[in-house]
Amino acid sequence: MLKVAFQGVRGAYSEAAVEQLIKETIEIVPLHSFDDVFDAVENGEADRGVIPIENSLTGSIHRNYDLLLKRNLWIMGETKVRIVHNLIVNKNVAFGDIRKIYSHPQGLSQCEKFLSKYPDIENIPAYDTAGSAKMIKEEKMLDSAAIASKQAAFHYDMVILEEGIEDLEENYTRFFILSKSKIINDNANKTSIVFSVKNEAGALFKSLSVFSLRDINLLKIESRPVHGKPWDYYFYLDIEENINNEKGMKAINHLEEITSYLKILGCYPKG
Amino acid sequence: MLKVAFQGVRGAYSEAAVEQLIKETIEIVPLHSFDDVFDAVENGEADRGVIPIENSLTGSIHRNYDLLLKRNLWIMGETKVRIVHNLIVNKNVAFGDIRKIYSHPQGLSQCEKFLSKYPDIENIPAYDTAGSAKMIKEEKMLDSAAIASKQAAFHYDMVILEEGIEDLEENYTRFFILSKSKIINDNANKTSIVFSVKNEAGALFKSLSVFSLRDINLLKIESRPVHGKPWDYYFYLDIEENINNEKGMKAINHLEEITSYLKILGCYPKG
Repeated sequence: MLKVAFQGVRGAYSEAAVEQLIKETIEIVPLHSFDDVFDAVENGEADRGVIPIENSLTGSIHRNYDLLLKRNLWIMGETKVRIVHNLIVNKNVAFGDIRKIYSHPQGLSQCEKFLSKYPDIENIPAYDTAGSAKMIKEEKMLDSAAIASKQAAFHYDMVILEEGIEDLEENYTRFFILSKSKIINDNANKTSIVFSVKNEAGALFKSLSVFSLRDINLLKIESRPVHGKPWDYYFYLDIEENINNEKGMKAINHLEEITSYLKILGCYPKG
Repeated sequence: MLKVAFQGVRGAYSEAAVEQLIKETIEIVPLHSFDDVFDAVENGEADRGVIPIENSLTGSIHRNYDLLLKRNLWIMGETKVRIVHNLIVNKNVAFGDIRKIYSHPQGLSQCEKFLSKYPDIENIPAYDTAGSAKMIKEEKMLDSAAIASKQAAFHYDMVILEEGIEDLEENYTRFFILSKSKIINDNANKTSIVFSVKNEAGALFKSLSVFSLRDINLLKIESRPVHGKPWDYYFYLDIEENINNEKGMKAINHLEEITSYLKILGCYPKG
């Protein structure tokens, strides 16, 4: 049975990503931090790791970009999870019983419109969304609700009182699935790389040109500081091409001529 | 007297940036949040705002990138502050008296090597660096030290027991100085812009080419999500050119042909 690690408790949004990414029966390994997820896959305690990489409202999760650079795992797939926030309570709790609503600060702020309709209910920031549901269940709280995923309601055997209470519908998180070995799916059409450029004028432009001149579409660019070299950056690119195709391979070879550092982070089907 | 707003209490690293940026006698306006700084300058409570924009170890301060887009202030200058952490105590406190060291979590983690030499001293995370010094002073704590700037020691009339205790010397923070009106210094040679591109293949590459084809150097690129349009991005560029020069103006006009949104954030001398 495939062991799949993610950060958070059971019912975290990462678990929804796991369900979308893997259809087989698996063993879930919930861990405390993103670093722990990388550790678990590297030392074989888990076969796969699932990590969030960016949210369509709040942007990139920079810690995971840094870990993809420092550590040696391979991105073998991606998926995008629509973040649906639900109001979750213990069985036999009615809406009128609720005095407190717990969730991660981002969960609370993404449901501001809903929450502002009930000014008498106290909003309490907590460590995470699913963890709030878990606490309400374990401590048998009958005056409290959590804002969390439907997976959390299911896992802790609780009740969804209101579904989809988030303000903005365009709230998606993109997740990567990581493996220790370089597994490339037959349908892979997207590649993630990271590089730094030589200290020359126009170096970044030249780097991007190796793709544009070959009509390879650039899907995302992200920059992160290089430690010890203030105002130098690592650039992370997502390109729409399989690096095993001739065009992709030639672009990467061309890029190597220009960059001072280059690492392929993974090659996978567009999610 | 010029009123200058920043986020934090007196003695924050932002105050060192203020000292580097403005040589006149000024009135300091310490505020609670970055949003408050933008508010104060917009409504005239302050003449200038000073905000951190990126750190050479931890990267961009995304909240401030988002505020520069949403709000209407003008970047009229920049400076880079070398972050020097100091061990600060009340007068007449000796090193042997210290049982606890308070600082912002980032302050503590950037002095790990120093702190690890004294395993018996408890490290306590606090809301900010200068705020830790302020608290130790106000509560007359004789068994505690703060990790903070020399400005904090000076402002709260405390003593620096050890200077420069940070692990890595290459720790700089870049700050912007903001005004309500579009003031452009005669020596301005750098421009910051933000734009989004039309949904076409190669659009980002074309946008950068308006600068590269005119030999205008690209100093930084940063991307942030566009709300309501998942996986579309705003791109923030710093270019080495004054937009009032003919070359700079032509590049911006050219860029307007390609982008779906474009805003000039400021034009200022390289710090």
